[in-house]
Amino acid sequence: MHEVKNRLSIIPLGGVNEIGKNMYVIQYDDDIIIVDCGSKFPDESLLGIDLIVPDIAYLLENKEKVRGLVVTHGHEDHIGGIPYIIKQFNMPIYASRLTLGLIKGKLKEHRLLGTTALHQIDADSKVVLGSIPLSFFTTSHSIPDCLGIAFHTPQGTVVHTGDFKFDFTPVNDQFADIHKMAEIGKNGVLALLSESTNAERPGFTPSERLVGANILEAFINADGKIFISTFASNVHRLQQIFDAAEKTGRKVALAGRSMVNVVDVASTLGYLSIAANQLVELSEVNKYKNHEIVVLCTGSQGEPMAALGRIASGNHRQIGIAPGDTVIFASSPIPGNERNVARIVDNLFARKAKVIYGSATVTGMHVSGHASQEELKLMLTLMQPKYFIPIHGEYRMLHLHRILAESVGVNASNIFIVSNGDVVDFIGSEAMQERKVANGNTLVDGLGIGDVGNIVLRDRKVLSADGILIIVLTLGKSDNKIVSGPEVISRGFVFVKESEGLMEEIQRLTLDEIERLQEQYTKLNNHWGIYKQSIRDSIGKFLFAKTQRRPMILPIIIQV
Amino acid sequence: MHEVKNRLSIIPLGGVNEIGKNMYVIQYDDDIIIVDCGSKFPDESLLGIDLIVPDIAYLLENKEKVRGLVVTHGHEDHIGGIPYIIKQFNMPIYASRLTLGLIKGKLKEHRLLGTTALHQIDADSKVVLGSIPLSFFTTSHSIPDCLGIAFHTPQGTVVHTGDFKFDFTPVNDQFADIHKMAEIGKNGVLALLSESTNAERPGFTPSERLVGANILEAFINADGKIFISTFASNVHRLQQIFDAAEKTGRKVALAGRSMVNVVDVASTLGYLSIAANQLVELSEVNKYKNHEIVVLCTGSQGEPMAALGRIASGNHRQIGIAPGDTVIFASSPIPGNERNVARIVDNLFARKAKVIYGSATVTGMHVSGHASQEELKLMLTLMQPKYFIPIHGEYRMLHLHRILAESVGVNASNIFIVSNGDVVDFIGSEAMQERKVANGNTLVDGLGIGDVGNIVLRDRKVLSADGILIIVLTLGKSDNKIVSGPEVISRGFVFVKESEGLMEEIQRLTLDEIERLQEQYTKLNNHWGIYKQSIRDSIGKFLFAKTQRRPMILPIIIQV
Repeated sequence: MHEVKNRLSIIPLGGVNEIGKNMYVIQYDDDIIIVDCGSKFPDESLLGIDLIVPDIAYLLENKEKVRGLVVTHGHEDHIGGIPYIIKQFNMPIYASRLTLGLIKGKLKEHRLLGTTALHQIDADSKVVLGSIPLSFFTTSHSIPDCLGIAFHTPQGTVVHTGDFKFDFTPVNDQFADIHKMAEIGKNGVLALLSESTNAERPGFTPSERLVGANILEAFINADGKIFISTFASNVHRLQQIFDAAEKTGRKVALAGRSMVNVVDVASTLGYLSIAANQLVELSEVNKYKNHEIVVLCTGSQGEPMAALGRIASGNHRQIGIAPGDTVIFASSPIPGNERNVARIVDNLFARKAKVIYGSATVTGMHVSGHASQEELKLMLTLMQPKYFIPIHGEYRMLHLHRILAESVGVNASNIFIVSNGDVVDFIGSEAMQERKVANGNTLVDGLGIGDVGNIVLRDRKVLSADGILIIVLTLGKSDNKIVSGPEVISRGFVFVKESEGLMEEIQRLTLDEIERLQEQYTKLNNHWGIYKQSIRDSIGKFLFAKTQRRPMILPIIIQV
Repeated sequence: MHEVKNRLSIIPLGGVNEIGKNMYVIQYDDDIIIVDCGSKFPDESLLGIDLIVPDIAYLLENKEKVRGLVVTHGHEDHIGGIPYIIKQFNMPIYASRLTLGLIKGKLKEHRLLGTTALHQIDADSKVVLGSIPLSFFTTSHSIPDCLGIAFHTPQGTVVHTGDFKFDFTPVNDQFADIHKMAEIGKNGVLALLSESTNAERPGFTPSERLVGANILEAFINADGKIFISTFASNVHRLQQIFDAAEKTGRKVALAGRSMVNVVDVASTLGYLSIAANQLVELSEVNKYKNHEIVVLCTGSQGEPMAALGRIASGNHRQIGIAPGDTVIFASSPIPGNERNVARIVDNLFARKAKVIYGSATVTGMHVSGHASQEELKLMLTLMQPKYFIPIHGEYRMLHLHRILAESVGVNASNIFIVSNGDVVDFIGSEAMQERKVANGNTLVDGLGIGDVGNIVLRDRKVLSADGILIIVLTLGKSDNKIVSGPEVISRGFVFVKESEGLMEEIQRLTLDEIERLQEQYTKLNNHWGIYKQSIRDSIGKFLFAKTQRRPMILPIIIQV
């Protein structure tokens, strides 16, 4: 195959047709730049899996071409994969101050600090990676210090928005730099990669300040202690909670490891401003009156073991709910977490707390960090790209983002809806999507990275539904006669005490089957497989007819 | 213990602190009447379980006192447990015509038709069960033929609302009989049991007719085929879909077994009126033009194997989506089903369908069948009960329903928030909650009812997370020396090809452990347990340190 020259390629390795594990490759000939390296949590079908990170086979094959990893912001779906990837191969990392602070924390936890070069950048930085100069622009989002990236490649400028919304009244002055975006757009954008998380939502996402006003109002109306829970990484919201506490004469105590960590990092780096004596230890709370206290805690998604979950169930060592206390969920449950949140509200009501929970459009205690439809159109209008690739979203979000792009004038044939691994190539004045590179989910289970695959997961699925039935049998080497067994052992199948008859029937059936096999094959020899398969088949059929269950059946034959 | 006389008892056996598996006992001395016998679906923690029905130990102990089962309406959470209970003990069943039709279908499926007496009742029926006369009143809900029940006990009248809303413009004239309710209330209600499903929702639930108007508008605006999915049991909605189809000159074809069943039962019994030639076979759809067809299908909750799921993924034998077809979700996803619905919308967009989905408050394609807060207050006001027991709901719903009851004048100390099995006794002029009867979940797994308990579920949980590791070892009877093994077999733990070294280490460790044990116990004798436990401990520790996983470890020692 001959080498194509002057080719610009855009390749998502994670983040399209899914929410999470964002990772994008911008490649010009022999220069590869990576944008973000996220993780995502497994759904319930991935039994026992802790985390998912992108498959980086393509990068491993092209190690020597990788010039660096540029990170847009510090959320897990953009930085969570870094330690797992850095273990496999090294590359310099470029990120803004807070983002870098959070990345350092991760690397430290995995004992990887010092193994790779870390470069701090800001919106004014100029970085050249290989043949590609990069510039940056500030965006508004639910964490400080977010950057969009412009790649000024010889083929034209590629813009990656990162996550964004347009908040015209942001907390901590994190204004989206609309003038710089306009300038980039005016100078010509070949291709725009823009996030699609909220492409299903009409209108304009409200400002974070709205939440601050509602929090203050709730604080003013509260009598007892106040417990308030939100995403620890939402530093702007934390700021507004500290501000409301100060205005209402309350001290703030922190509950939950990630809350303590983020408040520590964010206040040290100057992203969070806390008045003197405002912060108190959780263990000191009892020294104050109830109306002098706010407990800022983790667990807003209903995680039973997070601070709020333990407080609600009365299992927190240091702090508890008293009747009349107010609990505020400054969050919206992520789909799939509703039931866990509901369990916690049940527990809080049982302790006679007042609880502000439910739809954020009713409570006003949460706004999204992502652009709604009108904001997505604003970004498309600012950038006026020739080509458009919607990213960060499941298929229906990418699809709806495409329709938005068409509505503001992007040529329908210049929009690419891609899957992870799809390559969009720009050669000369043409763009095409014809190639695909290796891609997929790398599963993290405990300390294992990628050692759990489809077969293991299929087995876990079978085991989880109906358990396992083990049949152990010893045969004599010389005469192939039964020396011991069949012994039948089950786990996760039926309650054995109530099923003794069933186990005896299985033994009897196995003996029948063995007798039949012994007649057919007088020696075991290399017929192990046939023996095992026959036992599996006949016991499997019997059990399904009898119980309508399909446990894993594992015959073990030992020759002595 | 001496026998208490003239005692009225109200006992929930299912349906409080949960949604589903409704079953309530009204007992006066030696007369027991049961209200409803529902099922519910397991959450993801009950691995492999198909269905949950109430534990009826209390009824089995008091078999001879049970006078009958009265059923309020035909939803699964009110009738789904009947076949499983009827298998265990028999009792006459009283229900309205449609409800009885649906119960008959269930009994037939389980080959139980004819094993119990079925009595058809309506809102005007007078039934006396033991010492208790019963009367009934019509309620509005998302299925026809719903009844509330008044038990005119010697201690006073107990009212059970069943499920209800107040729909002043109902489809098929199923008006809530507000006059009869007022009369019952005027004559004095000792205790009200009222449903709490929507106690979290402010306001008044909109009329079902609203959905009809929106469906008609969508049908008028559609170009290609229309696919519309809703709960099969919502006969009123089906009627409105048939009406809209007729008005827009479209034939209706049915997809999905339960849709075919319900349309069959409901039209045969006269609850659904379908114009001549309006219904066509699914296999005939291709004979018509696209704009002449509505496909009414199951799968509105995103079930991948239901009709809409298979149509969306292109796996339906008879029918497919063409670009420009319209798909309508006339439903709201039940919490926990959002992801499955999203997957189907993804697939539909990939086939270039127009899809109406998402929040019902935006699409207008669904209304609840349950009373919101103002309706709950209306019911409380009509009945003006002395005592109040909120039912049908998780704790927070019961709690909020209590607050509503207090707001309309029910004495706070006369409100009982109970758990399943709690008994509220009425003796003389006093009410008290001091006793508890057996209660719980009976788990149905395949053909087994109640044979899967906590140990089996705990094992399934362990197996699902990290799989199983089996270590087989044969020891000589005479000398206790190793004859064969240790053989190490794993399932659902790690991909063995990538972990050969690990398996070898496990073998080596087991050999070390056995050697140590052999020194300590020169004969195996009755030390099996010690041998097994030692292997489990040392291998378990090793594996956790090495992999941070905790597979089930199952040592099997055979003596030959």
